[in-house]
Amino acid sequence: MLHVGVNGYGTIGKRVADAVRSQPDMTVEGVTKTGPDFAAERASVAGYDLHATDEDAVDAFRAAGLDIAGTVEDLVDASDVIVDATPGGVGAEYRSLYEAHDTPAVFQGAESPDVAEMSFNARSNFEDARDAEYVRVVSCNTTGLSRLLAPLSETYGVKKARATLVRRGGDPDQSGRGPINDILPNPVEVPSHHGPDVQTVFPDLSIDTLGLTVPATLMHVHSVNVTLESAPDVRDVRDLLDAESRVFLVPRRSRIESCGELREYARDAGRPRGDIWENCVWEESITVEGRDFYCFQAIHQEADVVPENVDALRAMFDLADREESVARTNAALGLTDEAVRIEAPGVAADGSGRNR
Amino acid sequence: MLHVGVNGYGTIGKRVADAVRSQPDMTVEGVTKTGPDFAAERASVAGYDLHATDEDAVDAFRAAGLDIAGTVEDLVDASDVIVDATPGGVGAEYRSLYEAHDTPAVFQGAESPDVAEMSFNARSNFEDARDAEYVRVVSCNTTGLSRLLAPLSETYGVKKARATLVRRGGDPDQSGRGPINDILPNPVEVPSHHGPDVQTVFPDLSIDTLGLTVPATLMHVHSVNVTLESAPDVRDVRDLLDAESRVFLVPRRSRIESCGELREYARDAGRPRGDIWENCVWEESITVEGRDFYCFQAIHQEADVVPENVDALRAMFDLADREESVARTNAALGLTDEAVRIEAPGVAADGSGRNR
Repeated sequence: MLHVGVNGYGTIGKRVADAVRSQPDMTVEGVTKTGPDFAAERASVAGYDLHATDEDAVDAFRAAGLDIAGTVEDLVDASDVIVDATPGGVGAEYRSLYEAHDTPAVFQGAESPDVAEMSFNARSNFEDARDAEYVRVVSCNTTGLSRLLAPLSETYGVKKARATLVRRGGDPDQSGRGPINDILPNPVEVPSHHGPDVQTVFPDLSIDTLGLTVPATLMHVHSVNVTLESAPDVRDVRDLLDAESRVFLVPRRSRIESCGELREYARDAGRPRGDIWENCVWEESITVEGRDFYCFQAIHQEADVVPENVDALRAMFDLADREESVARTNAALGLTDEAVRIEAPGVAADGSGRNR
Repeated sequence: MLHVGVNGYGTIGKRVADAVRSQPDMTVEGVTKTGPDFAAERASVAGYDLHATDEDAVDAFRAAGLDIAGTVEDLVDASDVIVDATPGGVGAEYRSLYEAHDTPAVFQGAESPDVAEMSFNARSNFEDARDAEYVRVVSCNTTGLSRLLAPLSETYGVKKARATLVRRGGDPDQSGRGPINDILPNPVEVPSHHGPDVQTVFPDLSIDTLGLTVPATLMHVHSVNVTLESAPDVRDVRDLLDAESRVFLVPRRSRIESCGELREYARDAGRPRGDIWENCVWEESITVEGRDFYCFQAIHQEADVVPENVDALRAMFDLADREESVARTNAALGLTDEAVRIEAPGVAADGSGRNR
């Protein structure tokens, strides 16, 4: 049983804690919070041992009537491994504490790649994390692109990938963020950081990315073009993606045409917090024009890296190979449950998904 | 003096009327409205002869205290040419009326291409409209893409153009439209209609477009990739675009990073209605990666087709060649006035605009 400490109980940390707890071979040693708030209260109700980031925080928690099991240092010492889900840049500051206690750690994608020995995506480079002490799970957008590019690259070869990332302005609980009523090239420069970040997973891949930010909070949407080394039949590409356990092909008959409908569907299906761990690729958008593949995919920025964190832990501690770990993670989360996946049909008779 | 009737005094019609009135070789014979509202009141105050679309409308205008010069049929009969700025699809219904009065007409891009003899973009195919009786000015997005592709195609050759169009959900006065807080692949299918529409201007061009709609009203933003036939220096591409009178290179030093700032800049400059007639290409976004050109451009959906309508009129009546017409239109609108254009600098010393 792997004892996992979760440092930072925010958007990612709380979800990773729940995902770790659901696994048969892992347990949550405890979580940390900087102070008492609604999330700390829910963590306490959920039975997680709360750890305070410093002595002042201990006093604040006690004043709020919340039990504190110790400090972050206590948690690092007691855990076999830490999942660092602190805000971007803070993880790097914590690394020396983890090292001082000989505690391996998983960092998140908002950290610089050099915070860790390798950048991780379960589908793409699981085995490279074997026995690594410090691993970085790439960001939500890079995870989404990697899951799509891995099968395309393996099966057809990628000459050049290009993606325009239409990014949500903030998460639903980040009410101070924008934009309002605008469309921002963000960054204005080309490429955005996403292309180089994908290259931390696929060092030899040629990829150019452009980023924009818009007034939405639910998901990112990627407009993807991949010039392949060969010109496949669109039905084969569709079947290839459909075989990926963390790619959900959104079928035409679902009449899901928006991120709002995707998230409502996940809530109807009883997904925790309405989370969508998979890439959501619109089946109708899958198009092959000569050697050019196109699709739209939606990425739930709060959720898609969660199963990746679980798999990273198994890779680091040699608890399973890729196939076994992904299957175990998915099963424990309910990611493959028929109740939460529309069974994907063959290419629709109406021609959705096509060569042009 | 060309007598121009404007059928439909909405978003485009009111702007075309003002643009025609500002030209030395054209006059506005009158405009039509379906009923009295704030726009009709402003048309009357501006001195345009109001024409009603039917007899019921005549009564409604008179009840509202607005003078009516006649019906739409009177206007068609009295005009040398009609600019049809009615809602998409309505123009096609009007064509038989124009034909019955031997009155040529300019239609807008929301009509099907077969409404007219040719689809028009001043920069790309001005001469093809010579002596045509029915001409269609392509849509705001197609106009924006054509203005960018024309010089690239002429100078470097285009192997394949690809664009992701991040579209505004509606205009500022269309408060009933969405989306709210969502990012919609729109259409979900690839390509969107924009690629084929560009091919009405450039029949031999290979282009794939993808469309999305987001919660914004100010401008569209295009993420553009063009695989060229050669690998130019980025400074040459920049200079090429800078030489285009209807492309505004947004310089880094302006600190304009959003559509909101672009529109505010236009308002500061005293542009009528804060309109931006030019493509707004962020200079920092211009990138050349091998033979791949990239940029972001913002398109003011209410405004960029306005000078194109004026030029279409001159082409149809052989009043000037392209260069002369565009210069005359721009001068009359104030499009080239230094007061409303930041003088574009050379490539910035900080490296904005670059080869990678």
